Amino acid sequence: MSEELAQLTITEAAQLLEKGEASPVDLVESTLERIDRVEPKLNAFITVMADEARREARKLTNELARGRRRGPLHGIPLSLKDLYYTKGVPTTAGSKVMADFVPDHDATTTAKLKRAGAIIVGKNNLHEFAPGSTNNNAHYGPCHNPWLHGRIPGGSSGGSAAAVSAGMTMGTMGTDTAGSIRIPSCMCNLVGMKATYGRVSRYGVIPLSWSLDHAGPMTLTVQDSAIMLQALAGYDSKDPSSLRTPVPDYSRDIDGGIRGLKVGLPKEIWDMEFDSEVAGLVRRAVSVLEELGAEVREMSLPLAEASSYAANLISRAESTSIHEEWLVQYEDDYGDNVRGRLQMGAAVTAVDYIKAQRVKTLVQQEFGRALEEFDVLASPTCPIPAHGINDDPTVPAGRAFEGQGMMTLYTRPFDVSGQPAITVPCGFNAEGLPVGLQLVGPWLGEGLLYRTANAYEKATEWHVRRPAV
Amino acid sequence: MSEELAQLTITEAAQLLEKGEASPVDLVESTLERIDRVEPKLNAFITVMADEARREARKLTNELARGRRRGPLHGIPLSLKDLYYTKGVPTTAGSKVMADFVPDHDATTTAKLKRAGAIIVGKNNLHEFAPGSTNNNAHYGPCHNPWLHGRIPGGSSGGSAAAVSAGMTMGTMGTDTAGSIRIPSCMCNLVGMKATYGRVSRYGVIPLSWSLDHAGPMTLTVQDSAIMLQALAGYDSKDPSSLRTPVPDYSRDIDGGIRGLKVGLPKEIWDMEFDSEVAGLVRRAVSVLEELGAEVREMSLPLAEASSYAANLISRAESTSIHEEWLVQYEDDYGDNVRGRLQMGAAVTAVDYIKAQRVKTLVQQEFGRALEEFDVLASPTCPIPAHGINDDPTVPAGRAFEGQGMMTLYTRPFDVSGQPAITVPCGFNAEGLPVGLQLVGPWLGEGLLYRTANAYEKATEWHVRRPAV
Repeated sequence: MSEELAQLTITEAAQLLEKGEASPVDLVESTLERIDRVEPKLNAFITVMADEARREARKLTNELARGRRRGPLHGIPLSLKDLYYTKGVPTTAGSKVMADFVPDHDATTTAKLKRAGAIIVGKNNLHEFAPGSTNNNAHYGPCHNPWLHGRIPGGSSGGSAAAVSAGMTMGTMGTDTAGSIRIPSCMCNLVGMKATYGRVSRYGVIPLSWSLDHAGPMTLTVQDSAIMLQALAGYDSKDPSSLRTPVPDYSRDIDGGIRGLKVGLPKEIWDMEFDSEVAGLVRRAVSVLEELGAEVREMSLPLAEASSYAANLISRAESTSIHEEWLVQYEDDYGDNVRGRLQMGAAVTAVDYIKAQRVKTLVQQEFGRALEEFDVLASPTCPIPAHGINDDPTVPAGRAFEGQGMMTLYTRPFDVSGQPAITVPCGFNAEGLPVGLQLVGPWLGEGLLYRTANAYEKATEWHVRRPAV
Repeated sequence: MSEELAQLTITEAAQLLEKGEASPVDLVESTLERIDRVEPKLNAFITVMADEARREARKLTNELARGRRRGPLHGIPLSLKDLYYTKGVPTTAGSKVMADFVPDHDATTTAKLKRAGAIIVGKNNLHEFAPGSTNNNAHYGPCHNPWLHGRIPGGSSGGSAAAVSAGMTMGTMGTDTAGSIRIPSCMCNLVGMKATYGRVSRYGVIPLSWSLDHAGPMTLTVQDSAIMLQALAGYDSKDPSSLRTPVPDYSRDIDGGIRGLKVGLPKEIWDMEFDSEVAGLVRRAVSVLEELGAEVREMSLPLAEASSYAANLISRAESTSIHEEWLVQYEDDYGDNVRGRLQMGAAVTAVDYIKAQRVKTLVQQEFGRALEEFDVLASPTCPIPAHGINDDPTVPAGRAFEGQGMMTLYTRPFDVSGQPAITVPCGFNAEGLPVGLQLVGPWLGEGLLYRTANAYEKATEWHVRRPAV
């Protein structure tokens, strides 16, 4: 058995399975073989579920033999950021505190993927408890970027991104509170979708900040992302923020093209430029959208930067409220760079928190109006490419953004607005590191985002490149 | 012109207007005459809008003469709690701080009532800025209960309740954060409707606590309430909490009866009994529901009391965040009993506030399930009848409810759950003071509540009694 099958996209693998040219057992064996060889170089997994995956693969292979195919995810190997409850399997949140935690039930999303026939092959490394963008994990070790050893994969869903990028799983689940799906997807040349707040259940996903947390898929292609979101989206009474709105067919209009699409370039985000190579590549991507018929125009989101400040205060307070008791009881079990972040929220007053929530409301109003005037917004996903595991990202003099990460400046505003945002590969810098284009849509406009991202992806070749690992 | 017309219900007056047997000018003149005589005894108004009302009455009379009738509120005299922005008219919030504030636009609800043809005759007295249930106002004086001079009308919408009860307006707008529509309605023998959170816009209504504030009508009858809510309900993009759900016709099924209706009696609320006469009258009201065909059963809302504690913390923090700067700048301009309440929230941490919001979420889940099992819940509205203006309500030894008002114990849980709740007159104690029955429905179940309340009202005579003033 070779490692080739493991490196297919979900769509490609699903076609082989449908034609009977490969079986779920074949896919899982290829995937485990690749994990065996590649994982030691990257450290993208906290737990590899070889036995469970083989058992499921046999069951799903038998189902196919009996003529039962559950859908496009039937027999597809997927992984989960280790924040997702997985029945009977350790779910550590990348922490020492929860190292021995084995849930007795699945997250709603875990259960939905399993029901759709996906085979969970492992739990991915992440930034401990998720409040950071490096994936430098004090307990399970750092994860390396498949594109350049010694570089971060981005975070907090870094192991997830590295695993998909390196062909150790065909898709994965990340979480995004300030950019944690989109940033590592961008840094590893993936498609990362943060759907509308409330569109994907967070029940059974260890929280960081309730009012900002999003769950969503990370994949090799836009089509793969749409397939995963189709299985994930929908109302869940167990998540109080879950939306009751019916789920459309995300693949229906995905090839519809973007002629006449009104694309806005938020100047407040573009003006916060940190790397001219990144900006240049993303500008080039925008001109591809124009060549495809989109009408591109600069526009303004005056509250973009304020939204990051508000979000920072909100997520500090919410994450402290989640970790408050453990921080006292197990203080030494938290990594140094995480403990401080989780403790800071104790100093936030209710009045300040409420004001931050009011800013959030104003952001939603302002961004909501913008996405009535424009169909889609476009910007870079990350201000810089993946930096060294041991480096702090360089912030040019006088450009320090106190109290918040530079890395999340482009992504975080849309966790605040709750609008869907996707990142797609849009090129490589001189070091061969991937750069991503972020597209933002109106609330529940996931279908429109997929159509736009798909048009761009079909017109370019960036997503086809794979790292040599 | 006599005072008789002024004392009609909205429904009765609308019929006279429709038949041409009275004009809006007649109604307004009768109302102003009654205000002239009765208002000095009660102090229910902060501003009487005689000139504006006469001008509007002439305009609406002319419209009728030309055959244009806007609907059942055309030409009906109404008033507003003095928290509602009224273009060109002082809007004081019952405070000294805002004594000179004249808005340049209407609240959404003010505008909707005007568009429906209502004539605003004045702005009602209230508990300063609304955080209390007595309407003992340090700046504009206390308001008296029309049923017994020297007793409170309830609060915070006390002037509103006194004005309707005494026939000085046919209906009014209150606000309800912990019971401020239902408590004074109960104490003045009115129907008070707090619709589902988000059903009635709060834009232009001076806030007390954003996440708990509700706006709604106070009227003499259930039918009148439905007429007002019909004009008020609906989506408003200017209120971020506003619901987009379409508004049904509230009068359509109002005479449908309640045979087979499942009515739950929440024992946690009934067990907090403070006055056996109140409890007895409300038990009698419940047996009337049974006689009408309802199936009544005791049930449990385990979080009912916790919901009051959480709400208290939330509204302290939110009201402090609203008043923070003024409390420093104009400290002496706040009444003594209000200043302290508005300052207390400064000590609340974000972590505690977030925990209270989590309790709110649990309450919504628990109460939501309860209103799937039962159609309607029934309880007393107020634990005791109107107490003396100079009295603190007596709390039996060992029954002190620290940090929260006894008076709101029955009503506040449903500001937390956001479910619609209505109070209807259900009898009088030995002193001749009104007692109210509270009915609670599922989210957006206003129609069902009106049908239930209307069935009860038609089977009883309590709402017909009027105070001698």
